[in-house]
Amino acid sequence: MPRRIAAEFLGTFWLVFAGCGSAVLAAAFLNPAGLDLGIGFLGVALAFGLTVLTMAYAVGHVSGGHFNPAVTVGLAAAGQFRWRDAPAYIVTQVVAAIAGAGVLFVIASGRPAFDAVESGFATNGYGDRSPGGYSLLAALITEVVMTAVFLFVILGATDTRAPRGFAPLAIGLGLTLIHLVSIPVTNTSVNPARSLGPALFAGGGALGQLWLFLVAPVAGALIAGFTYGGLLGQNEPSAPLESATLA
Amino acid sequence: MPRRIAAEFLGTFWLVFAGCGSAVLAAAFLNPAGLDLGIGFLGVALAFGLTVLTMAYAVGHVSGGHFNPAVTVGLAAAGQFRWRDAPAYIVTQVVAAIAGAGVLFVIASGRPAFDAVESGFATNGYGDRSPGGYSLLAALITEVVMTAVFLFVILGATDTRAPRGFAPLAIGLGLTLIHLVSIPVTNTSVNPARSLGPALFAGGGALGQLWLFLVAPVAGALIAGFTYGGLLGQNEPSAPLESATLA
Amino acid sequence: MPRRIAAEFLGTFWLVFAGCGSAVLAAAFLNPAGLDLGIGFLGVALAFGLTVLTMAYAVGHVSGGHFNPAVTVGLAAAGQFRWRDAPAYIVTQVVAAIAGAGVLFVIASGRPAFDAVESGFATNGYGDRSPGGYSLLAALITEVVMTAVFLFVILGATDTRAPRGFAPLAIGLGLTLIHLVSIPVTNTSVNPARSLGPALFAGGGALGQLWLFLVAPVAGALIAGFTYGGLLGQNEPSAPLESATLA
Amino acid sequence: MPRRIAAEFLGTFWLVFAGCGSAVLAAAFLNPAGLDLGIGFLGVALAFGLTVLTMAYAVGHVSGGHFNPAVTVGLAAAGQFRWRDAPAYIVTQVVAAIAGAGVLFVIASGRPAFDAVESGFATNGYGDRSPGGYSLLAALITEVVMTAVFLFVILGATDTRAPRGFAPLAIGLGLTLIHLVSIPVTNTSVNPARSLGPALFAGGGALGQLWLFLVAPVAGALIAGFTYGGLLGQNEPSAPLESATLA
Repeated sequence: MPRRIAAEFLGTFWLVFAGCGSAVLAAAFLNPAGLDLGIGFLGVALAFGLTVLTMAYAVGHVSGGHFNPAVTVGLAAAGQFRWRDAPAYIVTQVVAAIAGAGVLFVIASGRPAFDAVESGFATNGYGDRSPGGYSLLAALITEVVMTAVFLFVILGATDTRAPRGFAPLAIGLGLTLIHLVSIPVTNTSVNPARSLGPALFAGGGALGQLWLFLVAPVAGALIAGFTYGGLLGQNEPSAPLESATLA
Repeated sequence: MPRRIAAEFLGTFWLVFAGCGSAVLAAAFLNPAGLDLGIGFLGVALAFGLTVLTMAYAVGHVSGGHFNPAVTVGLAAAGQFRWRDAPAYIVTQVVAAIAGAGVLFVIASGRPAFDAVESGFATNGYGDRSPGGYSLLAALITEVVMTAVFLFVILGATDTRAPRGFAPLAIGLGLTLIHLVSIPVTNTSVNPARSLGPALFAGGGALGQLWLFLVAPVAGALIAGFTYGGLLGQNEPSAPLESATLA
Repeated sequence: MPRRIAAEFLGTFWLVFAGCGSAVLAAAFLNPAGLDLGIGFLGVALAFGLTVLTMAYAVGHVSGGHFNPAVTVGLAAAGQFRWRDAPAYIVTQVVAAIAGAGVLFVIASGRPAFDAVESGFATNGYGDRSPGGYSLLAALITEVVMTAVFLFVILGATDTRAPRGFAPLAIGLGLTLIHLVSIPVTNTSVNPARSLGPALFAGGGALGQLWLFLVAPVAGALIAGFTYGGLLGQNEPSAPLESATLA
Repeated sequence: MPRRIAAEFLGTFWLVFAGCGSAVLAAAFLNPAGLDLGIGFLGVALAFGLTVLTMAYAVGHVSGGHFNPAVTVGLAAAGQFRWRDAPAYIVTQVVAAIAGAGVLFVIASGRPAFDAVESGFATNGYGDRSPGGYSLLAALITEVVMTAVFLFVILGATDTRAPRGFAPLAIGLGLTLIHLVSIPVTNTSVNPARSLGPALFAGGGALGQLWLFLVAPVAGALIAGFTYGGLLGQNEPSAPLESATLA
């Protein structure tokens, strides 16, 4: 178990540090001539996906590569992960997300005039805290649907019938795709740990809206986890428990 | 068959919801400082391709991963799919495309001042409804040629002689490539279901031009399906029917 | 041989039609609000690479997936392709490149006010025809070095010691990388057929500079082909002739 | 050993020439109509990653595909590379980086009004030489953390438990991710050879800050190398020395 905890810590740290880091440090950037060389939402979407792609290849063979409490819960609901291991995974993911946001905060503070609250610090939000001003209902539907499909992709790509070795590619790029669509709506969570870490540093409004990004991703993940087997699974469950690792 | 139907529904829902969603929600986005952080045509092209890449890895081993009536028809023409299964696949794809466009409509409506008709809602078009003002003839040639080559890529990458497991990568990124070229011409269809779903919500002009995006992709797919074996196939057909799945 | 010819025709057609098509149709695109949604040089670079990635997976197992006279010549120099098959491959590539540029010309002409000569039609150039105004010497060095490294990547990634199945990925993304660097210098050739096709439609200045894009890529390819074995090859050549296919 | 040296030379040359080349030649580019078609930080991030992805597939089976003194040192610290081979690798990498920067200098000089010192020539920096004005402390933390995680990805993805053949994909895209986040902070090094090459041509301020980009990446790599086995490695070391190649 210690190695699995280390793997989940490293992966979730990387997801929050580098994913949110791309948004905070590089999304918009004007060069001295006034040209915008920033990576935009496209670059941020790519960055989040690549955190999962890289870590799933690097340590997916150790812990299964969840890096996200919603994934842990969804896999458990699908019978691909032991419920009794979930608390240790989730606590680790939350601690790692806070650590990732913390290191990012220190680096971002190395820039003159950085203000975590004013910048939003890559937190998730709805209504007046949604990047595009989307309503609470739109945010809720988006996070539930996106997380549900994310879990279907994870469960399907790690299915024993799927091509071996490609799951981290499909899952990582699936997270990129989710961001390509939904950054304007909620800044994209689908991951309660990723929402919690930065919110602690941005404070105020971000913490007040945090509940949605804890509830909606977990709800979406449970929907997918409980229905995958019936809708898309094999007729006979041939895979032993915990077989849905990324290795 | 129920699992294959569920897989086609999920994949086509995802293609229309997330592909068109990236265009409707994220293509253009001005931040408060007036910088455009939107994902542009490049991001939309990547999103469409990743819907297919992710779902082909997730459920390609269940249904073959068509998500597109033109693909179903083209594979049948090539002898890689049973004609008698085509109606169930196509009906499912159309229903799923409408569902995907519907969920996107609800989310997009959560933004103040959203107007599906005025925005175009990611519909396909030619002439005055072409993003770049391209003629009907240019649109027709584009959709026929693009779909034909798309089917050649699908048939070739799932050929038993091709490297195993890479087909979803080649096919998904092939759809990205098609969008990189042809969004300015027709907003890119190559998929009658993808064209039909959003058109129902945008109404008027979109429905009046829908015929081209039903006819041209199917024509292109049939050309490729009927000629693949003679031009590029193996001398002796060693693959049994329906072997061209993505698994 | 007919199937290999068909495969080279399809792949080279796709490379020129879709690669140059992305540049001509989609590189710059202003929406009605004046925002630039065009794919830029980044999108064009991705498009060129994906033409090779998709076709190498689709028909690489048929013809080896050259789609480029410089690749054919370089592989022959390295002893991985029969010199006597080179003329048929090269003639096919040139004809396919002209066909690809021709279909693109018809589509591009469907836009009001299109002018192939004035637009440049994705032709390669140096000096006053270089996108960034780079000199003949800079263009020459760029094309020789880029093509030489491209061939090293092709020869290395198809080496029997390399991981199986990944060569089309490495080679396609290698072509993307080459474009990311060198579009401003020469509009990027590394492929005499790709240079010739559009030049026939743009005429004048493009034809006058065509010689460099025939000579430099072939020179670079020959340098790599003749030195690969000595510098990086296996001590004993265990691979039979023509083994460096992409399958 | 000569083939391994040739492989490290080629890969490091490519990393510096094409990675820095994308930044110097293509990051910002205005077309005659005043639209910015440049590849921005996103394109530069992709370019650096693809240099490693392509060369790791091409020559990783020859030398292990380090192309970076920090990687060589980190792998040695992890017991995956012989310390006694490190000097030859590192000297080769440094010489190749200078050669890559030199060829880039010649090409860039083919543009009217190019000035290596004024342009920065893709050198790394902090404080007033940081693209976003980040402090020395922020730069130091960024380079140490990024290189440490980079080594964790390399060690994990080449672990015998990881899927075979995907390591170059994970490592190359990992370098892309690192650039997506940290170009604004330091212009991204994580590689002392990559920092040294361009600095020799930009001179002055770049050379004065070079120490940080020699020290920090090596420190990060050593942290990861010495801790990987204990934190994430297998219970029993079953892999023989030098097994962590990319093949």
